[in-house]
Amino acid sequence: MVGEQITTLVLYEISVMLIFAVLGYMLSKKTGQPVSVGIIFIGVLLGPSVFGLLSYNETIAIIARIGSIILLFLAGLSVDYSSIYNKKALLVGIVGGLLPFAGGAVITAAFGFDLITSIFVGATLTATCLGITSALLREMGKMNTETAKLMLGAAVVDDVVGLLVLSVVSAAPSFAFMPLITKISLAIIFLVTISFFGIKLVPRIVDVFDKNFGIVSGHLTFTFGMGIVFGFSYIAEAIGLAAILGAFLAGVCLSNTLYSRFFHHGGEYLEAVFTSMFFIAIGIVVELTAIVTSFWLIVALSAVAIATKLFGCGFAARKCGMNRKDSLIVGVGMAPRGEVAFIIALFGLSIGVISREIYSSIVFVSFITTVITLVALKRLYGK
Amino acid sequence: MVGEQITTLVLYEISVMLIFAVLGYMLSKKTGQPVSVGIIFIGVLLGPSVFGLLSYNETIAIIARIGSIILLFLAGLSVDYSSIYNKKALLVGIVGGLLPFAGGAVITAAFGFDLITSIFVGATLTATCLGITSALLREMGKMNTETAKLMLGAAVVDDVVGLLVLSVVSAAPSFAFMPLITKISLAIIFLVTISFFGIKLVPRIVDVFDKNFGIVSGHLTFTFGMGIVFGFSYIAEAIGLAAILGAFLAGVCLSNTLYSRFFHHGGEYLEAVFTSMFFIAIGIVVELTAIVTSFWLIVALSAVAIATKLFGCGFAARKCGMNRKDSLIVGVGMAPRGEVAFIIALFGLSIGVISREIYSSIVFVSFITTVITLVALKRLYGK
Repeated sequence: MVGEQITTLVLYEISVMLIFAVLGYMLSKKTGQPVSVGIIFIGVLLGPSVFGLLSYNETIAIIARIGSIILLFLAGLSVDYSSIYNKKALLVGIVGGLLPFAGGAVITAAFGFDLITSIFVGATLTATCLGITSALLREMGKMNTETAKLMLGAAVVDDVVGLLVLSVVSAAPSFAFMPLITKISLAIIFLVTISFFGIKLVPRIVDVFDKNFGIVSGHLTFTFGMGIVFGFSYIAEAIGLAAILGAFLAGVCLSNTLYSRFFHHGGEYLEAVFTSMFFIAIGIVVELTAIVTSFWLIVALSAVAIATKLFGCGFAARKCGMNRKDSLIVGVGMAPRGEVAFIIALFGLSIGVISREIYSSIVFVSFITTVITLVALKRLYGK
Repeated sequence: MVGEQITTLVLYEISVMLIFAVLGYMLSKKTGQPVSVGIIFIGVLLGPSVFGLLSYNETIAIIARIGSIILLFLAGLSVDYSSIYNKKALLVGIVGGLLPFAGGAVITAAFGFDLITSIFVGATLTATCLGITSALLREMGKMNTETAKLMLGAAVVDDVVGLLVLSVVSAAPSFAFMPLITKISLAIIFLVTISFFGIKLVPRIVDVFDKNFGIVSGHLTFTFGMGIVFGFSYIAEAIGLAAILGAFLAGVCLSNTLYSRFFHHGGEYLEAVFTSMFFIAIGIVVELTAIVTSFWLIVALSAVAIATKLFGCGFAARKCGMNRKDSLIVGVGMAPRGEVAFIIALFGLSIGVISREIYSSIVFVSFITTVITLVALKRLYGK
């Protein structure tokens, strides 16, 4: 049986994570930084490298896992098809996803790390985190411009690119017993099944269920939906894809249900609790000393992270007929990295392909890209 | 670092628990049984004693723990002072709480079990679970009768009695190093502090916080509130009280905030997910063979559980001036045992003071009391 000590510790950890996440949120608001940066910073302070109030263990790993699944589920739920299914967003997203992946991998290899580590670091640089960019655009009333819509669409595309890259990469160390051909076939079957059948079948099943049982207790449909989200995540991981890709696709499927706003409501409450703890968990694992020991790696990765998005996305936008300034805005606006980078880094750490030092460097790179974007974008719009 | 295998298993467990909980819910509705009975039954089927799709481990223990805290938090949040702070409810609740406690303990001891086990079993019989009774009353349009209000008030009172009994009982095996006098002093300080200061101070802090930060992102207040709930649970357990007593008291405090409906909304979404898994977890641990091996214990405990509530609550109601039939309805309506019994039983199991056989017997006793109440109450109202 499971002892009392463990569960008492869980209560301590959850309460500390939640209350300090709120503190991190307040700190972000006071300093004008993105919420994730504030909460992760508090997480670093709580972790063993400063005050040692919390340390990373199985419970926190499980909570962070749940948090990342809820994050990607909500991302999938909010996908607006019309904004993705256009050539511009696809081009900007794919070029702007693959270039940082390649650049990140090459730079990491140049620092002497082995192939799998380099590829993993490259994967963390793939996906844009539009949090800070969209907050700025909203503030300035620019959310309905063509530039903003292009970035939103492209960000979804590079999320998917990032998840696919992660899936291919993470299949390498694990599931080594499964022949590559089986793995790829399974992945294709899964993706095709969901894209062609799941996207129509899942909403229909959920709607029929909701009609028959949801009325009695509305929350039951939510329970069912979350079962599907975790089910898709499990299947994705079991066949060697990324669990969060499964969660994302489940979100996309559930966005087509009649009462998808219900999933939004519930998902946001779960997010309020689990994503806060997820960011704290990200911070706990950071080693502050990495700033010194991996100084040049952090500098080089940050430069590559920004340059590849700036040129990749900017160039693609220009190719699509945007003017010089708008293309520059797209290039700068797409530079920040966030949740997906953290999730991939934490996953890489947990399966042992990247060290705590590299993990910490990636978190710092994410901070740097965010802060630089914040300053640069304000200037670009200020002109 | 925490390996990938564990977290893949977590995804499997969560998805199976959620989807099968939904199945349990559907089963309950089809057969007219309470939801908890249906989901626990499915949990038994999933567990090692039948299909073996799930087995109780640390992850499931943590999830069940979170579920029980959310349950009691919501119970506290829904407390209506005016219905408790009257002599009738207090009398019916206290007599109807202590009598089953004493009866359960004596009967268990009579079966040859040791003192601590007997006291624990007694504690599981203390608290009424009004779920099925209130569902029936609602269905019959009797929710606004004096009888119904008395039962609702008394059920809250016997919940508190149950939690206090559990606190005293569970302090015995753990924290043995702490002198009894320190333990009791700490418990009194905690309860007095919350009853006199917390109940006014906590809502004021949360409201000030909500005014300053909640508006920017409403869900943040919810995160803060959940931090308080887990914080109170941790403090309660750390000083030797029951964690769920802390969660209950946090709920009572938060019910006095300006936007308490916000906590209701969010709490119910968390409940939809975690309570379903909690009931599945309760089922997993049940050993079906206990029906045979502990047959007479189950019969005796069920008889005591029903008789003590029937006479205890019924007699107290009669003393308060109720007529014969209404007193009988109160006595019968208060007989079902549910969530609190499960939580105490699972806790007793986890700290090793009751065996899996006794644990299973308690779950069966809860089923029996519920089904008998269902039949008896329908007849009483049918007349």
